[in-house]
Amino acid sequence: MERLQRQIDFLLEIDKLKQVYRQTLISDGSRQENDAEHTWHLAMLAITLAEYANDPELDVLRVIKMLLVHDLVEIDAGDTYAYDELGHLDKEEREQKAAARIFPILPEDQAEELYSLWMEFEQRQTPEARFASACDRLQPLLLNYHTEGLLWKKRGITSEQVLKRNQPIAGGAEPLWDYVRKLVESAVAKGYLAP
Amino acid sequence: MERLQRQIDFLLEIDKLKQVYRQTLISDGSRQENDAEHTWHLAMLAITLAEYANDPELDVLRVIKMLLVHDLVEIDAGDTYAYDELGHLDKEEREQKAAARIFPILPEDQAEELYSLWMEFEQRQTPEARFASACDRLQPLLLNYHTEGLLWKKRGITSEQVLKRNQPIAGGAEPLWDYVRKLVESAVAKGYLAP
Repeated sequence: MERLQRQIDFLLEIDKLKQVYRQTLISDGSRQENDAEHTWHLAMLAITLAEYANDPELDVLRVIKMLLVHDLVEIDAGDTYAYDELGHLDKEEREQKAAARIFPILPEDQAEELYSLWMEFEQRQTPEARFASACDRLQPLLLNYHTEGLLWKKRGITSEQVLKRNQPIAGGAEPLWDYVRKLVESAVAKGYLAP
Repeated sequence: MERLQRQIDFLLEIDKLKQVYRQTLISDGSRQENDAEHTWHLAMLAITLAEYANDPELDVLRVIKMLLVHDLVEIDAGDTYAYDELGHLDKEEREQKAAARIFPILPEDQAEELYSLWMEFEQRQTPEARFASACDRLQPLLLNYHTEGLLWKKRGITSEQVLKRNQPIAGGAEPLWDYVRKLVESAVAKGYLAP
């Protein structure tokens, strides 16, 4: 029973992800999105858009597992806003510290597996990590566009910043990058994004 | 581009799952849980607890896909509380109507795949559906216990009701059912649940 109890303790601990809020609004603009529901949405992107991955042999289960755990460290480290340059300076350090606390609540074999999946996601070297990362970038773009760029306008974000930030989408799924470039063009035309 | 646009339209439509609230509190008791974050949590249960499934050959990817989509119909049909007997009378009808609207936003092949996964979950006949269903029952139990039975007490729920409702866990994962029986015993002893 001790193994199962550690797994349950972990599952209760990570419930806190539901209280980490992101700098993105949900689709009706009524409130900010939290990390847990964001992650569910990403997993839905992964199963719906897998056909566009650059690698046709993609292991979708690994992509989904990677996405499911990719934000867990934010329970301690908090969400670092995409365009917060200062916050990115110590992001890695804060997140490694969080990983060292959270994953070992699990039995050792599982702690290692989930830690590896998280590192794989962060390093963006495998086709699975590249595609998972593409989903993670595309999703807030869709929500920002759908909410008429409310938060982009509030923060004075430019199309150049968005294109630079999201360029890794091309490394995971070329057709999605083509879509994003058109979306950004349209966002500028509609005044959602500064040119 | 039309295929991709339908997929994106679907992904934006299902964002509404973040606004369907359940009769369960998140772990700190501060607010009700929504369906999207609940679903993420279930997927985490599935990858963490898969070793307890009655079927050792379980297809974990299918379990996760099933979980990811299992509550989508609640965007239209709403959440039906586990112990709401009246609500369960027309639950199936309301949910089939929702499925007929939501899944076909996708291209036909994907609409069919996700609809089938949802039906498989509902019918609880395959090992994957039984295990997915076990996760779906176990998760609110863990949260109810962790929040000291706040909502159980408010609604006067008894241990008999909880055991009856959650008995299907045994069909998906025997060791998790053993755990649940002990949890319910402990909940009665602590006064979280009426005997």
